[in-house]
Amino acid sequence: MKRYLPLVACAALSAAFPLSAQEAKIYPAPSEIVAAAKADEWVAMAPSDLLVMDLAPDSKGKPRRVVIQLIPAPFSQGWVSNIRKLAAAKWWDGTSINRVQDNYVVQWGDATEKKALPEGLAVVPEGEYIVRSLNQDSQSALAVSAAERARATANSKMLQRDVDPYSDQTYLHKGWPTSNVVGVGLAPTHCYAMVGVGRNLSPDTGTGAELYTVIGHAPRHLDRNIALVGRVIEGIELLSSLPRGTGALGFYEKEEERVPIVSVRLGNEAKDVPAFEYLSTDSESFAAYADARANRRDPFFNVPAGGADICNIPVPIRRKVK
Amino acid sequence: MKRYLPLVACAALSAAFPLSAQEAKIYPAPSEIVAAAKADEWVAMAPSDLLVMDLAPDSKGKPRRVVIQLIPAPFSQGWVSNIRKLAAAKWWDGTSINRVQDNYVVQWGDATEKKALPEGLAVVPEGEYIVRSLNQDSQSALAVSAAERARATANSKMLQRDVDPYSDQTYLHKGWPTSNVVGVGLAPTHCYAMVGVGRNLSPDTGTGAELYTVIGHAPRHLDRNIALVGRVIEGIELLSSLPRGTGALGFYEKEEERVPIVSVRLGNEAKDVPAFEYLSTDSESFAAYADARANRRDPFFNVPAGGADICNIPVPIRRKVK
Repeated sequence: MKRYLPLVACAALSAAFPLSAQEAKIYPAPSEIVAAAKADEWVAMAPSDLLVMDLAPDSKGKPRRVVIQLIPAPFSQGWVSNIRKLAAAKWWDGTSINRVQDNYVVQWGDATEKKALPEGLAVVPEGEYIVRSLNQDSQSALAVSAAERARATANSKMLQRDVDPYSDQTYLHKGWPTSNVVGVGLAPTHCYAMVGVGRNLSPDTGTGAELYTVIGHAPRHLDRNIALVGRVIEGIELLSSLPRGTGALGFYEKEEERVPIVSVRLGNEAKDVPAFEYLSTDSESFAAYADARANRRDPFFNVPAGGADICNIPVPIRRKVK
Repeated sequence: MKRYLPLVACAALSAAFPLSAQEAKIYPAPSEIVAAAKADEWVAMAPSDLLVMDLAPDSKGKPRRVVIQLIPAPFSQGWVSNIRKLAAAKWWDGTSINRVQDNYVVQWGDATEKKALPEGLAVVPEGEYIVRSLNQDSQSALAVSAAERARATANSKMLQRDVDPYSDQTYLHKGWPTSNVVGVGLAPTHCYAMVGVGRNLSPDTGTGAELYTVIGHAPRHLDRNIALVGRVIEGIELLSSLPRGTGALGFYEKEEERVPIVSVRLGNEAKDVPAFEYLSTDSESFAAYADARANRRDPFFNVPAGGADICNIPVPIRRKVK
C-alpha cells in the first residue's frame, strides 16, 4: 500500500519503511518478529507429510511446482490416508486442474470422472469432519481437553477482541488454524490456501481424489461441512493466478484450458524437495507475532484493530534455514 | 466443491444440484434468493459514480475492462473528489498496473512516480478515514444515529453469532460493508474487491492517484488506517489472475511486466458502459440472502455456521436487467 516504495527486493517487508532504530525496537512489524525468532522455535515438517504436485511448465517453459503439507492427526486422517494411497498409485499423473472460481477455489482431479480409483480407499463417514476431543488417548466427549483449552486461552490473551462469527473459539493447534463450536466439536478452518476434499451432495464425503484449495476470502461456512486435508505451503500463486473458468462454478469449458498435472508424489518420493519448517504456534515469537498482527503499531498504522480473524494470522512457513 | 457437476453453464449455481422441488422451496440457496428478488428491490447505480478502467488487451487480443463503483457519502469523499478530477484530467491514461501481491492487493498508478498531478487536488486529513455519524445533517458525535442502529439491528437479527474480531458492529450501509468501533467511529471494510488509496507513511493520506484493490482474504487491519473509495463491480478476475510480482511487496521488477492502462473515465464519459444495480441492503430479499449466507441449509450443507463475517456476505451486484 506504500506509494513511494523503492522497487528493490528486500526480505523483511518493513525494511522498506524508514524506521528509526528506536521505533523499530518498540514496534516491530510482524515480519520482523518472525525474522528474529530463534532457531528452536521453528518446527521441521516431515517430508512424508508433504504432497508435491508438478504441473506442466507454463507458456514460457517455466516449471510449476506446488507443495502441500498434509494435516496431522486428529484431523481428517481417513482422507489423508486415501491421499497417500492415491499418490503411491500415481493416480493424479495425467489428470488436470479443472476449475478456477474467482475469490473461491482452484480444483483438480480427473476431469473425465471415469478414471478408476486404486483399491483400498476408505469411505470416510461425515462424522470425521469434526473432532470431539484433541486428546487422542481418551474417548472423552469434551470438545477440548483442559490442557488444550489452557493453551488456547494463553494464545488468545493477545487479542482484545477474541471473537469469531463462525465458532465459539478459534485457535492454532500444532500450527493449524482450527475452531470449536461447543456441543458440535473442532475442525480446521477454511483459510486461504487450505486444501479440501471435493465431494458430491451429502452423505457423500469424497475420497480425496478430487481436491481444491482456497484462493479468496475464507469460505468459513464450509468448516465442518467438508474435509480439510492440508494447506499449500509453496506455489499457491501458481494456482491463484490461473485464468478463471467461464463455466458454472468456474469450471473450464474447453479441454485445452485445463492445466495438466504431470505428477503428484509424497515429499519423500519426489525429487529436489527442500525442507520446510513452521513457526511453532506455542512459541513466544508466535505469540508476539499474533499480537502484532492483531494490533498493528508499526509506523504505517494509526488505529490498531484490537483483533484479527484466525485466517488473518497465517502461520509463518518457510524453507528450512540451514 | 461439487465433484460430479455437469460441465454446463447455468446462471443459478444451485441449479446444478439435483434438488427436489420441495427441498428447493424450503431451503433456497443464497443465489436462488437473489434470483427471485423483486425488481423494485434492486437499486440503480448512477453512471457518474462508476470509474471505467480499460487495460491494454490481453495476449490474445481480448479487451480488458474493469468497472469500479465509487463509494457514496459520507465515506472518503475528499479522495473520491480527487479521483473524479484525475479521471477528468485523463491522468491515468498511459499509467500501469505495477504491483500484484498474492492474497493481498493489485495496485496501479504512475510507476515512475514523476508524473505531475492535476491542479486542485485536496490534501485530505487522516480524520476522514473515519465517520463519526451517519446523520449528515447533525454534527452529533454519536457514532451511529438511532435510525441507523435500528436498521443495523434489524439486519443483524439474522445472525445468531453477530460478532466481528475487528469492530464492535458490522453492517451494510446503503449497500456498502462498514464497521463501527465505539468511541472511534465508522469506516468501510476491506473486503475482497474493495478499492483503496495507496499512501506513504502517516500523516500522508494519498491523493487517490495510486489505487489498489483487495484480491485475497480481507485485510481488515487496514480499516480506519487507509481510505476506501470504491469497489470493483465487474472485471475483478482480470486483476486477481495477473501474474504475481516478484519484487518486494509484489511490485513488478521489469517494465514489461506492467499492464498498461489505456484509459480511466467516469461511467458517464466512457463508451458502452452497461447499467448496473445492487440488491438493496434494506430489502427483504437481502435479509433472506444474508440469513442464508450465515446459515447454509441447502442440501450440500450439514452444519450451518450460525454466522458470517461481513466480507462473506457480498452485496449482490449485476448488470441491470431490462
